[in-house]
Amino acid sequence: SQAHKLLVLPGDGIGPEVMREVVKIARWLGEARGLRFDMTEELVGGASLAVHGVPLRPEVVAMAKEADAVLFGSVGDPKWSEISFDKRPEAAILGLRQELELFANLRPAQVFPPLVNASSLKPELVAGLDIMIVRETVGGIYFGEPRGIETLADGSQRGINTEVYTTSEIERVARVAFELARLRDNRVCSVEKCNVMESGLLWKQVVTALHAREYSDVTLTHMLADNCAMQLVRNPKQFDVIVTGNLFGDLLSDLASMLTGSLGMLPSATLGPAQESGKRHALYEPIHGSAPDIAGQGIANPLAQILSFAMLLRYSLQREAEAALIEQAVSNVLASGLRTADIMSEGMNRVGTEAMGAAVLQEM
Amino acid sequence: SQAHKLLVLPGDGIGPEVMREVVKIARWLGEARGLRFDMTEELVGGASLAVHGVPLRPEVVAMAKEADAVLFGSVGDPKWSEISFDKRPEAAILGLRQELELFANLRPAQVFPPLVNASSLKPELVAGLDIMIVRETVGGIYFGEPRGIETLADGSQRGINTEVYTTSEIERVARVAFELARLRDNRVCSVEKCNVMESGLLWKQVVTALHAREYSDVTLTHMLADNCAMQLVRNPKQFDVIVTGNLFGDLLSDLASMLTGSLGMLPSATLGPAQESGKRHALYEPIHGSAPDIAGQGIANPLAQILSFAMLLRYSLQREAEAALIEQAVSNVLASGLRTADIMSEGMNRVGTEAMGAAVLQEM
Ligand SMILES: CC(C)[C@H](C(=O)O)[C@@H](O)C(=O)O
Ligand SMILES: CC(C)[C@H](C(=O)O)[C@@H](O)C(=O)O
Repeated sequence: SQAHKLLVLPGDGIGPEVMREVVKIARWLGEARGLRFDMTEELVGGASLAVHGVPLRPEVVAMAKEADAVLFGSVGDPKWSEISFDKRPEAAILGLRQELELFANLRPAQVFPPLVNASSLKPELVAGLDIMIVRETVGGIYFGEPRGIETLADGSQRGINTEVYTTSEIERVARVAFELARLRDNRVCSVEKCNVMESGLLWKQVVTALHAREYSDVTLTHMLADNCAMQLVRNPKQFDVIVTGNLFGDLLSDLASMLTGSLGMLPSATLGPAQESGKRHALYEPIHGSAPDIAGQGIANPLAQILSFAMLLRYSLQREAEAALIEQAVSNVLASGLRTADIMSEGMNRVGTEAMGAAVLQEM
Repeated sequence: SQAHKLLVLPGDGIGPEVMREVVKIARWLGEARGLRFDMTEELVGGASLAVHGVPLRPEVVAMAKEADAVLFGSVGDPKWSEISFDKRPEAAILGLRQELELFANLRPAQVFPPLVNASSLKPELVAGLDIMIVRETVGGIYFGEPRGIETLADGSQRGINTEVYTTSEIERVARVAFELARLRDNRVCSVEKCNVMESGLLWKQVVTALHAREYSDVTLTHMLADNCAMQLVRNPKQFDVIVTGNLFGDLLSDLASMLTGSLGMLPSATLGPAQESGKRHALYEPIHGSAPDIAGQGIANPLAQILSFAMLLRYSLQREAEAALIEQAVSNVLASGLRTADIMSEGMNRVGTEAMGAAVLQEM
């Protein structure tokens, strides 16, 4: 069979060291399961900035469009915090989302049974937690125009950003949420601030209309974003699928992940529109950031990156068996008591990045 | 001495029933401590809409400007969820903030020792928690223009809102945060999304410059809003004062309050600029909403409203002794085991709104 084209973008901080463990697993799948990958690795973020002067080269965008899927690490480096917007390491992920039209970011917040005590929340509130947040990622205030900082006549300044959502942008992401819900507990909660923002009011109206037209079998509820932040803390298990805009999704998905107590465990997928060929652009990345404070020490948790690769196998390559194999291996390793520093607890066996990666491979 | 002019605005849902308990306490202070109040009660929100056709009459705004302080209940009623923006019950609080230029919303998130087990978080993470969130409340995306929903040529729609912050708007709210920090643990964390929003970048720059110029004795840190949502769950006690814009403040302050497990206990103050007379407009309200689901049943917790009144005594009337008297009474009542439904736990003594109010008065 033909090799699957993967673009591998480790990025900054702990990105490269956790990605290394995935590459080993991919190679093993080639040998043991005949799953051939044609993997190209490129620099993005601060790493690209340092070498090429930009966080995301057009060549890399072109390669991403060509690839069957993109496996992304993480970007961000405090070293570049004073640089202009278009040059920041973060521009790499924002640019890829926009150029590949990756509009639906799927962020599962799941509690792994052996890690239930790692949560800040009481175990009974999070045991069995399984939320899917669907965040819109190419619209809203992240990309709306006008934007910028202008200097006024008196020398003072004004910073401006614009939140914009159109009917079709809302519909397509809501559709992803409804479809996912049908494969899960069949419930969608749509989140906005329709009591103060017109863009949120339109959001609610469009989701409601789409639901009535095509998804009335799914249970739809609406919630204000501030209330959602509270409800996620009060009783997170009330949610199945949450669908929301770019900015609320940024905060709420990070909040939801933290509820699980194991940010270093959580993968995500970001999907583009289905193309005529049936293919859709997709990028897979862990939810955690580049964690510059622990980078290079060999102590980062590689499991979120490994599980992102499993998501890639499932959603982009339709290799359910291999995806499940990886996930089962991760489960077994956790059950055997191995822990990286971020999920360490008493009586467990603390290991570094490489040993954790090796243990997963061993289990497979 | 002259009577203090208070405008009392109970609003919707549980607002009137919890406000009733405050009025009893105010009357008692008149008799027992010679603290005379000239209290006028007016309708706002859905209650005003039903009678006057608008959520906030200009007469009420004028009275609020005349008053020494405004004591607000809560607004919001699902009955009016389809009405236009300017008529929603919520327009009452938004209108008062804007008309009185109430730009700094002070939201303490404190854990009351007898209620530490009411939190979703593990007790050791929240015992002793004492955060002050200073939220900007007359700027940002809540009020920026252009805004609205427009219909495009093809019949689809576009919802637009604008986030705007100017140097002076940022400076004045940051100043409030720095001043408060000096009376507390002397630390301010400024929160924005400077990695994707220019308004956030300006926010960070202005806060940094003001700090260097006038508040370098205070420890200043910066945090991205998504990370702040996570950190509040991971380790809330790392924070002293948080200062942030209107929209992030809305989510983060609700999140922080929920960490305490006792939303029904938390008061807030919203302050305007100091006027030449030395006076400043101020509005006091509980953090909880109108809770339409339990309204009228006599089971709502009146303590947040009572503690909002204590804040009013302290900040607007400089009556520290009476403020402390109320707070001590609330403490004693909790210590004696009385609980409303929202904070009920095993072995405690469940009471309704009126009994709780009476118990506080009794303690005083
Ligand atoms: C890196 C940053 C620009 C990004 C975002 O804000 O979208 C990140 O926080 C995320 O959630 O993927
Ligand atoms: C009632 C609503 C408009 C208001 C807001 O969003 O500011 C409320 O949530 C608050 O936080 O005071």
